[in-house]
Amino acid sequence: MENPVLVEVTRGNRVESRHRGMVVAVDGDGEVVFSAGDIDAPVFPRSACKAMQALPLVESGAADAYGFGAKELALACASHNGEPEHAALAAAMLAAAGRDVSALECGAHWSSEQPVLIGQARSFERPTALHNNCSGKHAGFVCTACHTGVEPRGYVGYDHPIQAEIRGVMESLTGTALAHDNCGTDGCSIPTYAVPLKRLAHGFAKMATGAGLAPVRARAAKRLMEACMAEPFYVAGNHRSCTRLMQVAPGRIFVKIGAEGVFCAAVPEKGIAIALKCEDGASRAAEAMVAAVLARFFDRDEDVHATLMEQANHAMRNWNGIHVGDVRVTAALTA
Amino acid sequence: MENPVLVEVTRGNRVESRHRGMVVAVDGDGEVVFSAGDIDAPVFPRSACKAMQALPLVESGAADAYGFGAKELALACASHNGEPEHAALAAAMLAAAGRDVSALECGAHWSSEQPVLIGQARSFERPTALHNNCSGKHAGFVCTACHTGVEPRGYVGYDHPIQAEIRGVMESLTGTALAHDNCGTDGCSIPTYAVPLKRLAHGFAKMATGAGLAPVRARAAKRLMEACMAEPFYVAGNHRSCTRLMQVAPGRIFVKIGAEGVFCAAVPEKGIAIALKCEDGASRAAEAMVAAVLARFFDRDEDVHATLMEQANHAMRNWNGIHVGDVRVTAALTA
Repeated sequence: MENPVLVEVTRGNRVESRHRGMVVAVDGDGEVVFSAGDIDAPVFPRSACKAMQALPLVESGAADAYGFGAKELALACASHNGEPEHAALAAAMLAAAGRDVSALECGAHWSSEQPVLIGQARSFERPTALHNNCSGKHAGFVCTACHTGVEPRGYVGYDHPIQAEIRGVMESLTGTALAHDNCGTDGCSIPTYAVPLKRLAHGFAKMATGAGLAPVRARAAKRLMEACMAEPFYVAGNHRSCTRLMQVAPGRIFVKIGAEGVFCAAVPEKGIAIALKCEDGASRAAEAMVAAVLARFFDRDEDVHATLMEQANHAMRNWNGIHVGDVRVTAALTA
Repeated sequence: MENPVLVEVTRGNRVESRHRGMVVAVDGDGEVVFSAGDIDAPVFPRSACKAMQALPLVESGAADAYGFGAKELALACASHNGEPEHAALAAAMLAAAGRDVSALECGAHWSSEQPVLIGQARSFERPTALHNNCSGKHAGFVCTACHTGVEPRGYVGYDHPIQAEIRGVMESLTGTALAHDNCGTDGCSIPTYAVPLKRLAHGFAKMATGAGLAPVRARAAKRLMEACMAEPFYVAGNHRSCTRLMQVAPGRIFVKIGAEGVFCAAVPEKGIAIALKCEDGASRAAEAMVAAVLARFFDRDEDVHATLMEQANHAMRNWNGIHVGDVRVTAALTA
């Protein structure tokens, strides 16, 4: 199946580049309320499913035992910029469990956000695992292990109890059997599982509505999503789409980007969730897509709708600030 | 017309992302010797046509008057990293014409190459126009204007004599009428003209072979291409695909990348040139495509062929150095 062109990038009066993709919105029962493209195709959610991966941190009681509030839970669901606040909070989470940066197995990298990277380059010789965009998620894994009496070492491995627990959570949420044949290794070294896009969306719709979830999971899911919506800076950081999108309508929109053009989102008050992937993996396109699809659910809320569409369709300026073209979504998303 | 998938990005044992595109190789007479996708589609060449834009610098006698050798000519055709050597040489080119950085109208930006950016952040407060990846091209424009008695100020404008001259050069090379209706503004503020991909390739094939060119243009084209092949560091810089590709077979392969997934290339000894565009604008895909198409022309040169295919198909490693997937070209390019 050919996926439709969902985003165009223009220059002058011409389309310069095109992004294809698939997108689906479902309700808590898994009913499709909007779709485009091949929504049954298996997709690696990558970091877009971090809120799912953080459920054991809350369900196990670790988050409460270590006194974690909204900021810590948001960071556990984050792909952050490695700004000083992010790194410090990841360190504090580890300290709550009596651990430090040496417990992290995510690897180290410089910030992918240029202004942050410039600050980092001027502040230290090289980044640590605390600056890794996944450090909050990994700190959550370490805390979950420590609280439940599991040795954290090796927690990124497929067979480690932490990953086995997460696999079970994701199987339950997405209704998809997960094993080696649909498993890849993520950028931070943990397993990532290819899941049909529609089922990924359904998992987030369950989290957003509680539909079909045991009470403990429904409460944990609500708490994690509300934490992200309350502390969007800790989910990403300055200049980032996740932070910006959740700030459009505080407490009403949950979003999370994943590498290779994935975005998941939920509008709890509407009882729906969204999952999408840009076929070619481009973040700029996934960001435009999720804004446009979210806007569909705010058609009666003019300000929110307009602000989301400003994020979907936006001007591109060159080094001199000249308007050279636009990123814009196609009728496949707006009609 | 649907463009075929030319590059796949895998994770685990699955394809995670796909890149479509169009590619054409032609000889000096414009005969197509290889193609995939819609090769008649108009494409903004962006920085891929800098060697064409540098022809007036040589043809006007400015390059000789100012004593420019291969490094300066390579820099005039470059999208460079803004490494110290690049910025210093751009300054020296301007100084040869009695000008300085204040003559540049390209705007300033930090290096897009992370290790270079880190060094820049530690060396100065902010970058200047000398660090702009296009500073060598712009220095060439300023030098051409100064040598020919034209006021350089405003040289980025569509109606300035420098851009009018370049428009004529490109119309002649590509056999395409260029005017406002197929003109956009490039990242460095000069006009960029959408040209059918096949005609863009033919323009480079003329430059590589001299076919159909007046002697002064044929000599200038040969001199510019040879300068780039002799000084590939000055065309891009450390860790960059243009530099790496031209180092595979010194003096035998000319390449130049452009923004939004464009690549142009030539193999003078084979009398052919290549132009391609990744539909979605991804550099990683354009880089794989050009390596694979170049490899087709070195089928009897095992080492060159193998090295090019290693650049076309290569492993992706995560922050811990684990092999997580591959970038690979499809049979549409290799069969």
